[in-house]
Amino acid sequence: MTPNRLEAFSDGVFAIAATLLILNVVEPSGPLGQGLLHIWPSYVAYAVSFVTIGVIWINHHLVVAQIAKVDRLFLLVNVVFLMLIAFIPFPTHLLAEHLLSNGAQAAALSYGITLTGTAIMFNVMWQYASHGGRLLRENANPRVVRGITLSYLPGPFIYLIATVAALVSPQLSAVLYAGIALFYVLESSLFGGRA
Amino acid sequence: MTPNRLEAFSDGVFAIAATLLILNVVEPSGPLGQGLLHIWPSYVAYAVSFVTIGVIWINHHLVVAQIAKVDRLFLLVNVVFLMLIAFIPFPTHLLAEHLLSNGAQAAALSYGITLTGTAIMFNVMWQYASHGGRLLRENANPRVVRGITLSYLPGPFIYLIATVAALVSPQLSAVLYAGIALFYVLESSLFGGRA
Amino acid sequence: MTPNRLEAFSDGVFAIAATLLILNVVEPSGPLGQGLLHIWPSYVAYAVSFVTIGVIWINHHLVVAQIAKVDRLFLLVNVVFLMLIAFIPFPTHLLAEHLLSNGAQAAALSYGITLTGTAIMFNVMWQYASHGGRLLRENANPRVVRGITLSYLPGPFIYLIATVAALVSPQLSAVLYAGIALFYVLESSLFGGRA
Amino acid sequence: MTPNRLEAFSDGVFAIAATLLILNVVEPSGPLGQGLLHIWPSYVAYAVSFVTIGVIWINHHLVVAQIAKVDRLFLLVNVVFLMLIAFIPFPTHLLAEHLLSNGAQAAALSYGITLTGTAIMFNVMWQYASHGGRLLRENANPRVVRGITLSYLPGPFIYLIATVAALVSPQLSAVLYAGIALFYVLESSLFGGRA
Repeated sequence: MTPNRLEAFSDGVFAIAATLLILNVVEPSGPLGQGLLHIWPSYVAYAVSFVTIGVIWINHHLVVAQIAKVDRLFLLVNVVFLMLIAFIPFPTHLLAEHLLSNGAQAAALSYGITLTGTAIMFNVMWQYASHGGRLLRENANPRVVRGITLSYLPGPFIYLIATVAALVSPQLSAVLYAGIALFYVLESSLFGGRA
Repeated sequence: MTPNRLEAFSDGVFAIAATLLILNVVEPSGPLGQGLLHIWPSYVAYAVSFVTIGVIWINHHLVVAQIAKVDRLFLLVNVVFLMLIAFIPFPTHLLAEHLLSNGAQAAALSYGITLTGTAIMFNVMWQYASHGGRLLRENANPRVVRGITLSYLPGPFIYLIATVAALVSPQLSAVLYAGIALFYVLESSLFGGRA
Repeated sequence: MTPNRLEAFSDGVFAIAATLLILNVVEPSGPLGQGLLHIWPSYVAYAVSFVTIGVIWINHHLVVAQIAKVDRLFLLVNVVFLMLIAFIPFPTHLLAEHLLSNGAQAAALSYGITLTGTAIMFNVMWQYASHGGRLLRENANPRVVRGITLSYLPGPFIYLIATVAALVSPQLSAVLYAGIALFYVLESSLFGGRA
Repeated sequence: MTPNRLEAFSDGVFAIAATLLILNVVEPSGPLGQGLLHIWPSYVAYAVSFVTIGVIWINHHLVVAQIAKVDRLFLLVNVVFLMLIAFIPFPTHLLAEHLLSNGAQAAALSYGITLTGTAIMFNVMWQYASHGGRLLRENANPRVVRGITLSYLPGPFIYLIATVAALVSPQLSAVLYAGIALFYVLESSLFGGRA
């Protein structure tokens, strides 16, 4: 199987997971005007998760662009990775719903565990593909490959810190999740035009 | 990354956002025959939003057809743009549900703000890609490029007017949203065969 | 725009509309074993609509395979056509839910009107593309083109008859919808291996 | 029609069916922390069905990679096969919801019947394509073709056994479904790097 097929399925899961996020934004009860302002955490959660999935999608393509072939194990690692991507709408809903109430801590933890797991699987996928150049294109630039490796390694630790922060304050944890997404947006705004 | 990959993901979000609109058309309570006639605003809202998303999809491809490459910032602008496209089902539901009741104004405003934001992001995306020919194909026809620029600029203002109209009459606002979609259909019917 | 782009979006809508049908199959209340048998109309409705959408998808590709270019009006006609395809899950749900109860007639009519509309738009799309060879490939075989024209023309009438039958008996109407889908399956089973 | 078109639609259905599984994981009532632990069968069911769909997707591509052309009957067999794939979220929901309660047997049977049916249709599809080399590429390796045939034949029997086990113990049946998915993961982990 060529990487193309992998991309079609992966793009589908990315697009659907991102678009399904809107099902978490539900009509508030009571007067509509006030209600629509009241559910602002739903909008923020929608935006943060959509941008997060979008950024992971961009990085996923960066990986696939470096590889020339796929094997069965790589496909399976990718399926497990996509399983975590497709899971994101659930903790997003929990966080939006419970950000300011009792369940905030459990919600923030579930969001963080999902994103940490996603970041770990992303590294597993890349390590498997790039180790010893296993699945890489022959003309893959070693500096680019090393650059990718270095830029993805911090992901699990960053999300783990944001997750653990939920033990102190779930709201701090939520701010960190939003901050990570915002960081990627700003980083791209400042440096993205060069790539 | 080539524009192809961008299109696969974007087409996915466009197709899903449009198809999810049907989830807003819900079975009415009471006798079914009468109920199905009674929920006509749901059908109109479904049709208007589906055609609107369809027209934006057509224009999105017109843009992508002019560009030869994408950079990280363009991808991110596209993700934010798609975030607004995928949001459309929510205000569509609100407008269909509240068109003839108390929440009409809030619903019409939320619909208009979403569409105005979408039109703004569309222009940002195109301005970024076309400014100084940044991402354009080498053989991009300057007249076509200028024509696209001119034809997209009015979008945000047209939707802003329809949005502000909701402060006077939400129903007028809804008629304007439908009118804008109808305009694109008629315009294509009259001139679309020539492109 | 080349037909390829049209196909990506169309395939997306077809695939999503078909897959969303499963959301209409809902867990029955009461003891699960009996309940799962009791909701057999849901399974039949799911199967009939899935196969119907699948057959239309096959025919849609047959059309696209004959055309070399698309214009703005054709794209718009296609969007309206897809709007009807994406609508199918709603009357499917109504028919499954009300087949054996009071709302059967309204449900059968709504299903029939949707399918009749879809068949009409399919013919409009093909007539527009093929009339005078407007959008056809240069080497399109006139006999194949004429064969497609003739084979699609009966569609609206067949579905109209099944729709009108709902005025006499909604259950008869439902049997006809299933029969039409079954006819396409059997026709393909008998002759499909030759194409 | 070339196999490419078939893949676009099939990939769409696979991706959507897998991603829709998340709609079965619903927020528990009561205190969130405890509730999220309490619904562990939902997570397991989600993972098992996602990986199962992923593995079938990998095998589907293996099949499509061997064929050079498709005919109308093959397309229809594929549509019926996808109809079963898209059905998977429903029994997955039932199994997650009823694993430890009264409806466990009915839920386990419905899951098993769906998967057995899917495995049967997969073999029908492959037999039709490969019999006498009907749709195969000219240079298809006879040993690879025979290898595929042999590796897919046990599927229906394995799932049938797990289905029948539900008559003795639904929980045993569920463990077998999970075990089959796990087997494919482990098999790929051990041998997948060689393909």
